[in-house]
Amino acid sequence: MDHIRAPFRGITKDVKGRALCYRQDWINGFNSGIKILAPTMYIFLASALPVIAFGEQLSSDTDGKLSTVESLASTAICGIIHSILGGQPLLIVGVAEPTVIMYTYLYKFAKGQEDLGEHLYLAWAAWVCVWTACMLFLLAIFNASAVITRFTRVAGELFGMLITVLFIQEAIKGMVNEFNIPEGEDGALPLYQFQWLYTNGLLGIIFAIGLLYTALKSRRARGWRYGTGWFRSFIADYGVPLMVVVWTALSFAVPSKVPSGVPRRLFSPLPWESKSLHHWTVAKDMLLVPAVYIFAAIIPALMVAGLYFFDHSVASQMAQQKEFNLKNPSAYHYDILVLGFMVLICGLLGIPPSNGVLPQSPMHTKSLAVLKRQLIRKKMVQSAKESIQLQASNLEMYGKMQEVFIEMDKGHAPELSFVLDYDSLHCITICQGDLLRPCFLQTMSVEELKDLKAAVMRDEPGEGELRGRFDPEKHIDAHLPVRVNEQRLSNLLQSILVGACLGAMPIIKKIPTSVLWGYFAYMAIDSLPGNQFWERILLLFITPGQRYKVLEGVHASFVESVPFRQIAIFTILQLVYLLLCFGVTWIPIAGILFPLPFFLLIIIRQHILPKFFHPLHLWELDAAEYEEIAGVPHHYNRSLSIREYETSQPGSDDGVCDAEILDEFTTSRGEFKLRLSFREDRNIQVHPENSLQSE
Amino acid sequence: MDHIRAPFRGITKDVKGRALCYRQDWINGFNSGIKILAPTMYIFLASALPVIAFGEQLSSDTDGKLSTVESLASTAICGIIHSILGGQPLLIVGVAEPTVIMYTYLYKFAKGQEDLGEHLYLAWAAWVCVWTACMLFLLAIFNASAVITRFTRVAGELFGMLITVLFIQEAIKGMVNEFNIPEGEDGALPLYQFQWLYTNGLLGIIFAIGLLYTALKSRRARGWRYGTGWFRSFIADYGVPLMVVVWTALSFAVPSKVPSGVPRRLFSPLPWESKSLHHWTVAKDMLLVPAVYIFAAIIPALMVAGLYFFDHSVASQMAQQKEFNLKNPSAYHYDILVLGFMVLICGLLGIPPSNGVLPQSPMHTKSLAVLKRQLIRKKMVQSAKESIQLQASNLEMYGKMQEVFIEMDKGHAPELSFVLDYDSLHCITICQGDLLRPCFLQTMSVEELKDLKAAVMRDEPGEGELRGRFDPEKHIDAHLPVRVNEQRLSNLLQSILVGACLGAMPIIKKIPTSVLWGYFAYMAIDSLPGNQFWERILLLFITPGQRYKVLEGVHASFVESVPFRQIAIFTILQLVYLLLCFGVTWIPIAGILFPLPFFLLIIIRQHILPKFFHPLHLWELDAAEYEEIAGVPHHYNRSLSIREYETSQPGSDDGVCDAEILDEFTTSRGEFKLRLSFREDRNIQVHPENSLQSE
Repeated sequence: MDHIRAPFRGITKDVKGRALCYRQDWINGFNSGIKILAPTMYIFLASALPVIAFGEQLSSDTDGKLSTVESLASTAICGIIHSILGGQPLLIVGVAEPTVIMYTYLYKFAKGQEDLGEHLYLAWAAWVCVWTACMLFLLAIFNASAVITRFTRVAGELFGMLITVLFIQEAIKGMVNEFNIPEGEDGALPLYQFQWLYTNGLLGIIFAIGLLYTALKSRRARGWRYGTGWFRSFIADYGVPLMVVVWTALSFAVPSKVPSGVPRRLFSPLPWESKSLHHWTVAKDMLLVPAVYIFAAIIPALMVAGLYFFDHSVASQMAQQKEFNLKNPSAYHYDILVLGFMVLICGLLGIPPSNGVLPQSPMHTKSLAVLKRQLIRKKMVQSAKESIQLQASNLEMYGKMQEVFIEMDKGHAPELSFVLDYDSLHCITICQGDLLRPCFLQTMSVEELKDLKAAVMRDEPGEGELRGRFDPEKHIDAHLPVRVNEQRLSNLLQSILVGACLGAMPIIKKIPTSVLWGYFAYMAIDSLPGNQFWERILLLFITPGQRYKVLEGVHASFVESVPFRQIAIFTILQLVYLLLCFGVTWIPIAGILFPLPFFLLIIIRQHILPKFFHPLHLWELDAAEYEEIAGVPHHYNRSLSIREYETSQPGSDDGVCDAEILDEFTTSRGEFKLRLSFREDRNIQVHPENSLQSE
Repeated sequence: MDHIRAPFRGITKDVKGRALCYRQDWINGFNSGIKILAPTMYIFLASALPVIAFGEQLSSDTDGKLSTVESLASTAICGIIHSILGGQPLLIVGVAEPTVIMYTYLYKFAKGQEDLGEHLYLAWAAWVCVWTACMLFLLAIFNASAVITRFTRVAGELFGMLITVLFIQEAIKGMVNEFNIPEGEDGALPLYQFQWLYTNGLLGIIFAIGLLYTALKSRRARGWRYGTGWFRSFIADYGVPLMVVVWTALSFAVPSKVPSGVPRRLFSPLPWESKSLHHWTVAKDMLLVPAVYIFAAIIPALMVAGLYFFDHSVASQMAQQKEFNLKNPSAYHYDILVLGFMVLICGLLGIPPSNGVLPQSPMHTKSLAVLKRQLIRKKMVQSAKESIQLQASNLEMYGKMQEVFIEMDKGHAPELSFVLDYDSLHCITICQGDLLRPCFLQTMSVEELKDLKAAVMRDEPGEGELRGRFDPEKHIDAHLPVRVNEQRLSNLLQSILVGACLGAMPIIKKIPTSVLWGYFAYMAIDSLPGNQFWERILLLFITPGQRYKVLEGVHASFVESVPFRQIAIFTILQLVYLLLCFGVTWIPIAGILFPLPFFLLIIIRQHILPKFFHPLHLWELDAAEYEEIAGVPHHYNRSLSIREYETSQPGSDDGVCDAEILDEFTTSRGEFKLRLSFREDRNIQVHPENSLQSE
C-alpha cells in the first residue's frame, strides 16, 4: 500500500517525464513528412469502423437515443484531447464495446424508472460520468496504476472472450432481425410484406457472410504467396474497410425492382438534424435528476471506473511493450487523470465516453515502428553510400552509420552528450536529471547494431573476392533493430479524421446493416488467435493421438511445460467462469454489475488459485508474456518409404491412420506423390545453377 | 509399330493373366466379409453424385431428352458388366463430363438437321456408338494400349484443366439461370414473378456457396486437429455426400409462405414414367436414320473413340500405380475391348455410354488398400500373440508372422510353392507359366518386411530391460507394406447400388439444383491440387521475393530442377493452348472436334516441344510421376532476436517486410509473442515428466 501514502507521486513523475519530450513529440511528427499519413490512415480506418458498428448497436439498443453520431463525436473529441494533452500519444482512444453495454444497461434502467424515463436518461448517465471521473481522479492521484501487474492474463483474456461472445451474440441478433419488421416501424408498408422481408434477410445473410469471409481472408493477406509485397501489404492493412466498401457497393447492385429499403441500411440521424442536436443541452438537465438517482449513479460509476481503469491501462501497456524499444517514458498515472477529464466532458455533452482501445493501440505503435524503420534506413543508406564514395574504410563507414542511427534514435533527448569508443562498445555518458533510461539505451543501441557491424566488417578487403561487396540497400535492412516513431501527430490527425466522419454521415448511412453484423462476427473471430484461453479451449478438443500436431507447429510454451490434466482443469474452470460472466449480462438490471466478476477474478487469481495449482504451472498458464516455441517437424524423414510415414503416426486408431497416410500420399486425381530427398543429387549435378533461389 | 503386327497379342495376354486370378477375385471379395461394405459405400457415393450432377446437366442441355435416369442407368449397367467381365476390377466406370459434352454436341447437331431432328437424336447417337465400338475393337486388337506412355502429363493435365473450366462454366451458367424463368416454362405463373425468381436466385447463391464451402472443408477433415480419428475419417470420406444431404435438408427449412418450387429442385422424370421408357426402343429407330448421317457419324465417333481410349487407359493406369504393389496383372488391351462392347450396348439402349473415371478409380484402389491392411494386421497380430503365449523366440515369432503375411499376400496364386530361408532373405521359387511376377514379389515382400523384422529382433532378451517388449498391436501396424484387397465384389456392389438409385429417384429429385451447381464448383476446385499445370500457373503469380515460401513447403521437384524462365514459358504456352481448347468448345458445330487439340498435343509434345526445351527440363515438366521435395524450414532460427527473423526475409520490398515481420510477431490483440528455443532448459529441469508427449 506504499502507493497510497504518496499521493500525486505517479502523476508528477509522469508529467516530468513527458514534459521533457513533449516538444520533440510534435517535431518528430512534422519531420516525418508525408509518410506520417500511412500510419494515420491505417489507425483511422481501424478505429472508425468499430465505432460506426458500436454506434449502430447503441442506436438499436437505446431506441435511437444514442447513435453513430455520438460514438463518432466522442471518439473524435477524446482522441483530440488525448493526443494533445495525454501522456502516452501512442495510446488510441475510442468508444468500445464495454461502454456500449454499460450505456445500454443505463438506458434500460432509466427507461424503467418513473422519475427518470427516457428523457432524463442522458442526464442521469452524465451523473454516472461525474462519479466515474471522480473515482478515476482518485485512482490517478493515489498511484493505482502501480497494481497494473495484478491484471494478469487470466482476467484480460476472460474479458476478451466475453467481448467476443457478445460480438457473436450481436451478429446473430442483428441477422435474425433482418428477417423481421424493425421495432417501431409500420408493418403495413409494402416494404415489410413477407416476400421483401425474406429477400432482405437472404440478402443480409449473403452480405454478412460475404463480409466476414472476405475480411478474414484479407486480414491474412500478408502471408499470401501471390501478388507483390505492396499489394499484399495494402490488402492486409486496408482490406477490412475496403471490403466494407466493396460489399456496400455490391448492395447497390440489387435490381431496381426490389423496393428501396431492401437491403436495410444504417439507421442514424444526421449530425445536423434536430435529433442529434438535443444532446448538447444535457448538462442543464442534470439538475432535474432526483437526488436519490444521483447517488444511485455511484454503483454503475464504480463499475465503469473499474472497467475504464482496467481497459485503459491494459491498452496503454500493450502499446508500450518492451519489444518496441520505446525511448520515451510511460505515463500510466497521468493518463488515468486525463481519462477522468475526458469522461467528465463526454458525460456533460451527453455522449458515451471513450477509453483506450485494443487492438488499435498496439497496432498504432506497430505501424509507427514500420515508419521509423523506413526513415532510419533511408538516412543510414545515404551515409553508407557517401562513405563508399569517399572510399572510407569499413570501420569508418560503420562509425558513420552508427552515428546516424544514434542521432535518429535519441531524437527527443538532445541534452545528452556522449563519448563513444566504437571498438570496445563501451560508452561513457553524462546524464542529466533522474532520467537514466536514455543513456542505457545508448549502450543498448550500439549492442543492437552488433550484427550490422559484423556484416560491414565481414567485407574487409583481403578476405577473398568471393564475398559480395557490402550493399547498403540490402544489408542495412536486415540488421536494423526495432524503433518506433514516437510522436503525437498521427494520433491527432486520425482523431480529426474520425471527427470528419460526422460530415460523411450521409455516405456512411449507405452501409447495409447486414454488413455491420458480418463485421461484428469478423471482430469476434479476429480477436481469437493469440488469446491463450481460446487456444487452451481448442486444445481440449484435440484427441491425444493428434496432440503431436500441436507440438509440430509453433505453440504456446505452456503446452510443453504444464501437464495436460492441469491445463484442462484450469481451462474448464475458466470456461465455467466465462459462462457465469455471460450469464450475468443477461440479468435485467443487475446486469450492470457485469464487470464485477472480473474484479473478483483478480482476487481469486491471487488468493485462491495458488492453493490448487503448482505455482510454476500457474505462472505458465497465466504468463505475463506470450511465449511460444517453434515446432519440431515430427514426420517426413525425407524418405520414399511409406513405412517411415507410418511409424511417425503415434496413437493411430484402427484403420484410420491408414486412410490418412494414403490420403497424404496422393493428389486429388489419386496420383501417387513420390517424395524425394531434398535436392536430389541428380538435379544438382545436372544443373547446379538452376534453382529458383539462384534467380 | 511392332504392336500392329501382332494382332490380339495384348488381349490374349491380358485374358490369360486375369483368368488365373478370376476365381480368387471373387473369393477374396467374399472372404473380406462385411468390411467390404466400407470401400463399396465410399466408391458408390463418390461415383453416384457426379453422375446425378451430369444427368442434370444433360437434361438442361438436351431439353430433357436425356436426364439423370439415363446417366444412372448407364453407370449401373456398364459397372455391372465391367465388374464381372472386365479385366481390371479396380477400374470404376461411369458417365463422365466428356460424354456429356459430346452428347450435347450430338443433340445440337441433330436438332439442327431437318432429316434427323430431336426424335432421331438418340438413334443417330446410337450410330455414333456403333462406330465408336468398332474403332475401340480395332484399338484393342492392334494393341494400341502399348502407346499409353505417349499420353504424358502435359496432355492429361491440360484435359483435366479443360474439364475444370467447363465445370466452373456449368456452375456459373446454372447459378445465373436460377434467377431466370426456366426454358419452356410458363412465365405467367406466380412462381415466376420477379420477387420469387429473385428469392430463388438468392437461396441458390446461399445453397451453392454453402455446399461448396462445406464440401471443400470436409474433404480436408483428415488433417483436422479436432475430433476423434474415426470422426475425421468419416467426414473426409463421406462429408461431401453428407453435405449434399444437409443442404438439401436445409432447403426444406424455407418458410411455408414461400411458394413451392422455390428453391428449384432437380428436374428429371421418374424411371417408370413414359418419358423415360421411350429410350429402350431406340435400336429400332436406327434404320430410320438417313445413310448420309450414318456415315457422318464416323466423325464424332472418331472423337469419342479417341477420348474414351485415352480416358479409360489413364483411369486404369491411375488405379494400378506401382506404389499400390498390386499382385494381379493389368489388362489394358482387353479392357478396351470390353469398353467397346459397353459403348455398343449403351448406344443401342439410347443411353450415354460410360468409361473409366477419375478420380474414382484410384480412390477405389486406395480404399481397398486400407481394407487389406486391416485384414493383414488382424491375422498377423493374432499369430504374434500365439507365438508370445508359446514363449517362442523372436526369430520364430517373426517367421510365423512372415508366413502369415506371405500367405495373405499371394492369395490369388495358390499354384506357387516356395522354400524360404528367413535369415538370408533369399527365396527359391518354382514358378509355373510365364507369370514370373509373383515370385519376384515373394522376395520383395520379405524385403518389405525387413523393418518389421528389425523391430521384432531389436527386442531380444539380454539387450537390457529398458526397451519395451514387442507389442504386436502397435509395432506391426508401423511396419506393414501397402497391399490392396484386389477383388471384384466392391465394384459389382457399388454398381448395383448406383442402379438402385433409379428406384430412389423420387428422393434424389428433392436435391435443389443450386446444390448441384455448388457441387460442380466443388468438383472443379477439388481437381486442382496435384495438377502440376495448375501449380505452375500459381507459380507465375508468386513474386520472386516470395518464392522461398514455395521451397519451404513440400513442392514439386521441377521447382528446383528447372529454371524459372523455362517453367514460365512452358506454362504460358500450355495456358494459351488451354484457351484455344476452351475456345473450340464454343464453336457451334465444329465444337464436336474439341478432343482434336489433345490428340494434336501428343504429337506436338513428341516432335515439336523437344526442339525448344532442354530434354531434362522437359522430362521434369512433363514427368511421368508426381515427384515432390520436402520443404526446408527457411526461417525461425529458434531465437528470440528480431534481427534473426529479418535476415531470413530475402528480397524484401521497401517497408513491406517490416510490417510482415511485426505482424508475424504479434497476436491479434497486438501482444508480442516471445519465441523460445525448443524446450527451454528451465522447463525440462522443473518437470521433466510434464509434457503432452508423456501423457
